[in-house]
Amino acid sequence: MFIQTIKTSGLAHLSYFVASGNKAVVIDPRRDIDIYLDIAKENECDITHIIETHRNEDLISGAPILSEFVNAEVLHGPNADGEVLYATTVKEGHQVRIGNLTLEVIETPGHTKDSICILVFDNDFDQGPVGIFTGDTLFVGDVGRTDFYPEESEHVAGLLYDSLQKIKAKAAASIIYPAHGAGSVCGDGMAEREFSTVQHEIMNNPLMGINEREEFIQQKITEHHYQPPYFSDMERLNMQGAPAYATFQMTSSVQVEQLENMRQQGYVLIDVRPIESYLGAHIPNSCCLPIDMITAYAGWLFSLNDKLVIIADDQNMARYAALHFARIGFDNIEHYFSTNMAMVAAKGSCFSTIDAVNAEQVKQLLKDDWHLLDVRKITEYEPIHIEGSEHIFLGHLADKISALSPDDKFITMCASGIRATVAAAYLQAKGYNNVKVFLGSIGAWQSKNYPVIKPN
Amino acid sequence: MFIQTIKTSGLAHLSYFVASGNKAVVIDPRRDIDIYLDIAKENECDITHIIETHRNEDLISGAPILSEFVNAEVLHGPNADGEVLYATTVKEGHQVRIGNLTLEVIETPGHTKDSICILVFDNDFDQGPVGIFTGDTLFVGDVGRTDFYPEESEHVAGLLYDSLQKIKAKAAASIIYPAHGAGSVCGDGMAEREFSTVQHEIMNNPLMGINEREEFIQQKITEHHYQPPYFSDMERLNMQGAPAYATFQMTSSVQVEQLENMRQQGYVLIDVRPIESYLGAHIPNSCCLPIDMITAYAGWLFSLNDKLVIIADDQNMARYAALHFARIGFDNIEHYFSTNMAMVAAKGSCFSTIDAVNAEQVKQLLKDDWHLLDVRKITEYEPIHIEGSEHIFLGHLADKISALSPDDKFITMCASGIRATVAAAYLQAKGYNNVKVFLGSIGAWQSKNYPVIKPN
Amino acid sequence: MFIQTIKTSGLAHLSYFVASGNKAVVIDPRRDIDIYLDIAKENECDITHIIETHRNEDLISGAPILSEFVNAEVLHGPNADGEVLYATTVKEGHQVRIGNLTLEVIETPGHTKDSICILVFDNDFDQGPVGIFTGDTLFVGDVGRTDFYPEESEHVAGLLYDSLQKIKAKAAASIIYPAHGAGSVCGDGMAEREFSTVQHEIMNNPLMGINEREEFIQQKITEHHYQPPYFSDMERLNMQGAPAYATFQMTSSVQVEQLENMRQQGYVLIDVRPIESYLGAHIPNSCCLPIDMITAYAGWLFSLNDKLVIIADDQNMARYAALHFARIGFDNIEHYFSTNMAMVAAKGSCFSTIDAVNAEQVKQLLKDDWHLLDVRKITEYEPIHIEGSEHIFLGHLADKISALSPDDKFITMCASGIRATVAAAYLQAKGYNNVKVFLGSIGAWQSKNYPVIKPN
Amino acid sequence: MFIQTIKTSGLAHLSYFVASGNKAVVIDPRRDIDIYLDIAKENECDITHIIETHRNEDLISGAPILSEFVNAEVLHGPNADGEVLYATTVKEGHQVRIGNLTLEVIETPGHTKDSICILVFDNDFDQGPVGIFTGDTLFVGDVGRTDFYPEESEHVAGLLYDSLQKIKAKAAASIIYPAHGAGSVCGDGMAEREFSTVQHEIMNNPLMGINEREEFIQQKITEHHYQPPYFSDMERLNMQGAPAYATFQMTSSVQVEQLENMRQQGYVLIDVRPIESYLGAHIPNSCCLPIDMITAYAGWLFSLNDKLVIIADDQNMARYAALHFARIGFDNIEHYFSTNMAMVAAKGSCFSTIDAVNAEQVKQLLKDDWHLLDVRKITEYEPIHIEGSEHIFLGHLADKISALSPDDKFITMCASGIRATVAAAYLQAKGYNNVKVFLGSIGAWQSKNYPVIKPN
Repeated sequence: MFIQTIKTSGLAHLSYFVASGNKAVVIDPRRDIDIYLDIAKENECDITHIIETHRNEDLISGAPILSEFVNAEVLHGPNADGEVLYATTVKEGHQVRIGNLTLEVIETPGHTKDSICILVFDNDFDQGPVGIFTGDTLFVGDVGRTDFYPEESEHVAGLLYDSLQKIKAKAAASIIYPAHGAGSVCGDGMAEREFSTVQHEIMNNPLMGINEREEFIQQKITEHHYQPPYFSDMERLNMQGAPAYATFQMTSSVQVEQLENMRQQGYVLIDVRPIESYLGAHIPNSCCLPIDMITAYAGWLFSLNDKLVIIADDQNMARYAALHFARIGFDNIEHYFSTNMAMVAAKGSCFSTIDAVNAEQVKQLLKDDWHLLDVRKITEYEPIHIEGSEHIFLGHLADKISALSPDDKFITMCASGIRATVAAAYLQAKGYNNVKVFLGSIGAWQSKNYPVIKPN
Repeated sequence: MFIQTIKTSGLAHLSYFVASGNKAVVIDPRRDIDIYLDIAKENECDITHIIETHRNEDLISGAPILSEFVNAEVLHGPNADGEVLYATTVKEGHQVRIGNLTLEVIETPGHTKDSICILVFDNDFDQGPVGIFTGDTLFVGDVGRTDFYPEESEHVAGLLYDSLQKIKAKAAASIIYPAHGAGSVCGDGMAEREFSTVQHEIMNNPLMGINEREEFIQQKITEHHYQPPYFSDMERLNMQGAPAYATFQMTSSVQVEQLENMRQQGYVLIDVRPIESYLGAHIPNSCCLPIDMITAYAGWLFSLNDKLVIIADDQNMARYAALHFARIGFDNIEHYFSTNMAMVAAKGSCFSTIDAVNAEQVKQLLKDDWHLLDVRKITEYEPIHIEGSEHIFLGHLADKISALSPDDKFITMCASGIRATVAAAYLQAKGYNNVKVFLGSIGAWQSKNYPVIKPN
Repeated sequence: MFIQTIKTSGLAHLSYFVASGNKAVVIDPRRDIDIYLDIAKENECDITHIIETHRNEDLISGAPILSEFVNAEVLHGPNADGEVLYATTVKEGHQVRIGNLTLEVIETPGHTKDSICILVFDNDFDQGPVGIFTGDTLFVGDVGRTDFYPEESEHVAGLLYDSLQKIKAKAAASIIYPAHGAGSVCGDGMAEREFSTVQHEIMNNPLMGINEREEFIQQKITEHHYQPPYFSDMERLNMQGAPAYATFQMTSSVQVEQLENMRQQGYVLIDVRPIESYLGAHIPNSCCLPIDMITAYAGWLFSLNDKLVIIADDQNMARYAALHFARIGFDNIEHYFSTNMAMVAAKGSCFSTIDAVNAEQVKQLLKDDWHLLDVRKITEYEPIHIEGSEHIFLGHLADKISALSPDDKFITMCASGIRATVAAAYLQAKGYNNVKVFLGSIGAWQSKNYPVIKPN
Repeated sequence: MFIQTIKTSGLAHLSYFVASGNKAVVIDPRRDIDIYLDIAKENECDITHIIETHRNEDLISGAPILSEFVNAEVLHGPNADGEVLYATTVKEGHQVRIGNLTLEVIETPGHTKDSICILVFDNDFDQGPVGIFTGDTLFVGDVGRTDFYPEESEHVAGLLYDSLQKIKAKAAASIIYPAHGAGSVCGDGMAEREFSTVQHEIMNNPLMGINEREEFIQQKITEHHYQPPYFSDMERLNMQGAPAYATFQMTSSVQVEQLENMRQQGYVLIDVRPIESYLGAHIPNSCCLPIDMITAYAGWLFSLNDKLVIIADDQNMARYAALHFARIGFDNIEHYFSTNMAMVAAKGSCFSTIDAVNAEQVKQLLKDDWHLLDVRKITEYEPIHIEGSEHIFLGHLADKISALSPDDKFITMCASGIRATVAAAYLQAKGYNNVKVFLGSIGAWQSKNYPVIKPN
């Protein structure tokens, strides 16, 4: 009898493998399901059920894929928008028994209307549940966002409040198992820690501590969250059931000579190496998106229909990047280029570079007509920024680029220089020839004690 | 920030790797420490501290070994009997900080006098500890045994009661992380489940539910526990610090022709294959001890000074067996024999067999002067057994064998037939020529509805 | 530029991964193709071609499966019987270039009419081939069998002679890479060694040393080889292309209570544990076929249409057995039983045993009306056997069992006792209640200096 | 019975595991010996002997380390300079038997005076050896260098000629197993291919084809080879026996704030990331040496006594780099810095960059007082170089740097830009502030059809 947590970095996603008596249930599986099969094999378990705590909008659910593989039933809460095609709808009180454990559904709408939580009872020690899978309803240190139904924002915030009170009442002695950890786009205040109890959250989680429904609603409706455009793709795919992810993709590596040609035919070249490598030398007109940034920004900058060519140090890095893309539905990746820019150049092909500049240099350049473009989130920018800087959130760069003149000179910045490099690369690939990256960005600026704007 | 549980089957031992901000603490490491190094490497952590919740009596502590490898300090509670040579003594309130976590010692004597528990605080959410490492003080469904100080059994049971109340008071909202799970020799009532909260234990654990000190003491002092003789070796080694376990042992495989010779020179031949294989054919005068039984019974049947030859299907099985022996201090294993009894016989060497008999056959044999020897624990035997059976606990067989005549005929039994085979093999190796194993044992007997003795 | 050998034990099959300049060719892939994909990935190669040296009759070719996975062309020699559906026919002189290597086809009929060998040239050092893939034409220490065209046995033996002369002429300085090693059903005289050169074979291989065509033919047509009935299935499947092997099979473990029921519905229960375990205790009416024996004897004792239930120590052993079955086309394996005969018996289920007897006991039993059944190959039996023993080759037992009376008492024997156990189990499962296994068999008998019959 | 090749990239070193009948011999093991233990374990072999074909000068021998671990004898040829402390001296005709194989020593001085080759005989097919381990005497496509005894260069070249004739005579039908493949500092003309036969070498290897002793000597003494200074360290260590390599090193990661301090205390900071990353942003005053370049250039640029801090993307990269250093005797590596230059800069620390320039830019810069420094080998420079370029071989840069003025401006170049970056970084770390790297170097220059100097 054990619960194993499966972390998916990038998405900060947590899924769970619950086993007892050679039967197992998987909660909120991700698209690349090998890991659940491996755990099942290692522990000689049959996966009999798969439960989705809600319809995910930030990643592809692996439930229909795993279901087909191991012939298990998928359970999903009551969905207002229509049927989840691959799932059985379950309501309050529905029970699943595996070995000596009983899993019981409680309905907890708010984050989404179909959100459920799952109580875990040990049949031999059944005075109250020992655990609760809380999906995106309750996190360690935060609660779910409630901005997915803009017309009824107060209503759903109120529903979430009610759901949290239900959890307090039914599962006060339980360990919580949420669907996300720190770094998720599904909430900003999450603890880095991944383990907690309902009781500890009552004492420590600011939103769990609010005991006035109206106060809770007011706080929730003033929160700011971004919704990347790919969320709507995820919602659609997670109703129908996305296809399986083929682990052996990209049989074809391409030659440097083909790259420019492919780009002109509409392929998007994406360099997934660390930003330092990109700055040092890169394929002309390639975009920059380091592996860790893929799940957060690919859905903003690119479309699920784009045909991608991955540029990486080697095939393993390319495959690993492709996996990150696949987790959020990017499947058009058949080609990669295993780069070594010295060899590229030695064959006579062109290369580009972008200068990294430090705070002192930035200060100097600003006197010389360079624009300072800050691409952080508005919630990062507003509290503190450099005078004269312009703000475009990195996720909005594709939409707002037309407001920038290709004849102007741009220094990009963010919190450290990583998102700034992604932005600078995007601009360079779109024909902006004068771009530099402020490496160190706001952090470096502050450590020099250069002046900043702090509204309050 | 994560806590990873490392299970060691056989011993049912749980150790923990606690990490935050690239620093880590290991709680109660086992002797084969590779797994902690691997986790450290995978997560890019430096192990800065190692904590022992108490002086282990059932296994070799890996603390001094890991300490030397990674240059980390070992912390241990105040020990009444003298100094743990490799450790720093820590008292109530001592704190260790790693990254954003604070670990704090509370003294919880009872199971042993040096028992401590460790509270885990998240510095950003510090209203009460979120977890507690409970060592052998509190398990899921049970509490620590208190029979290690026979002269002051009431006193230490009372200490344990007080310690549990301290846990309730200080860590009511915490997840518990005990040092053992179900199957340990350190407690009988443990849940198969390995996750719980203090609050859930208060509601479900029978001993945590007792609110009268005297009632608790009375219940504890009437419990029955066996103490294998190797416990005293463990206590000694865990004061001094046991040597590291060399993972590459047994460079020498031996030939079948050497086995009898080695046996006569004092080597003990131990066959670790499944009991069915042993029954089917085995090397004459070899003992039987399947891998899963090693940590539970090697310390009863053999001495740490014995020189062992492992008989296994292949080298991997032999190594895995040697690891189990090493975890409880058996280090004299340099040789193994990779058996295939058909090949052994084809070379002209002798082989032995033991008959497995079923309930019907047993019933018949009992009419024909065969003795039925039940080797279960007394706590299993007393509630239900077969009329006319004699009881010798398997752990006591070496001591009590002289009471059995080699001229008599014995059928051994237990709950299923596994311990019965270990016992039968032991007898056969000691020259008892008429032994059979009752496969299915009490279970098979009952399913036939044959009569049993049930005292109450 | 490397050649990696992939050994498949059981079948004693050798396949090859040949790589140069990030391109690769696979020679004679087996059905479970993961290993080729892994090597490709590790070395960042694209597999561009797959070559079959001939139509395999002893195993399922993985060529069509791998071909579909990596989109590579399959090449096959000219086939007299019709088209290999998934392959392109290549003739003498056909070349494939990968990186700096050239592979060149030479036609070498004999073993089969479509047999080809592949010369390997390094384009930078191209004075003669450096290697040759010899398929089943030339082995280390032996040459291919030529009994597949019984009506034209002299003709094909002659063809093989000519093919070997061609190899001597064209590839005298080459390393040889054959399709089988020692233990294969495709030849008896193979060296245990897997590396050789054409020149070394000329000096050491008895058949390569024959320089008279007629002498060679005479020797080949007097060889004795068995042809298991599944060979015809393999030939059919290797014309059409067998389906892929699903690595995640057997999601369903069955309970002991279901086994007898399933058996009565036509399932065949196959116990793949070591023979000692089977002898010690087994499920009534189950057959015995240890993992190592599967590829050699499953095709004799069972049919590709049989629905199998694997009985094993655990799921891993069951899966590994299923893989061996799949390599020769047995795909109807959805269920396994993870046995522990003590637990089986403890639940009240029945178990069977078979006695292992030694030479002395056999001698005694023979005086008491027991029949001694020797199941070795005729080529093993004829040179030496025990007086009074009856001979039925294990592969023929299913066909010839009707000649044995179930009322008689049988001791089975072979070279060691392994095949004898398979035979005894088969008899017991068919209702022969009096069977014993002579453990040690002819080897044990001889070591006692008991009398044997040696025709010469 | 098998021979497994173990490749060590970087060093282009080949070692071998030879097994028969559960005994094994390892030929020329490298320092990190885990791989031999793993192969032994997987194949259930005891390693009984270790053979060194000669005293290695380019890497640390693992023979004494492995010997101690598995208690095996080390064999070494007759050494003129004194005793190899950990080895038994073996002479012409010495035999080792394992299982069914016989290994036989033949003395083949030339490359070194103690060089031996090992013939491999299969006892069942013993007409001539089937394989020969040729050490550094004979490679695929080349023969050993003979410049280690400068005062007797003709003599030792003659010895090598004689040794090669001995190989032709004794092992004409053999597969060859040399100690190095393409890319080794022990020979320039080696084939990329790693498999060959003596016969094929006779036909294809230019030096094996020479049949006049004097002609052979003349050709050998005119060859040019570099001898890195660490060779003498290797020779010393490989007489005494180097200590084991501890696989778990570097428990301590350092903070960016400590780096400059450590550097001033004498630590050498070595950045092992790809050169593109180094160019993009790096820690000021760190050297650049990508992992693939370590074994070739660390011995030139640094001393075995230097205390190193590795700068890498993460701990795994740092460990992998440390392993490469350890293979050639650099053991003073206890610290690493896991870099992310954006975070470094965000904390207010400084960073440096180096510009990569293309052919057109170089052409322009040369008009503007920049010096073009070509760091290729003299054998690469002489046949083709750019007019006005200065030549300093990268390996000699430390020695010759004083000839360069820190006030001058340098563009470094090589064949592609990799060694050029190593050189530029070295200069920058030594205080040369104006350095740029010609990315693409001679290759890029030629593809532009810019003029070059070709002496002939």
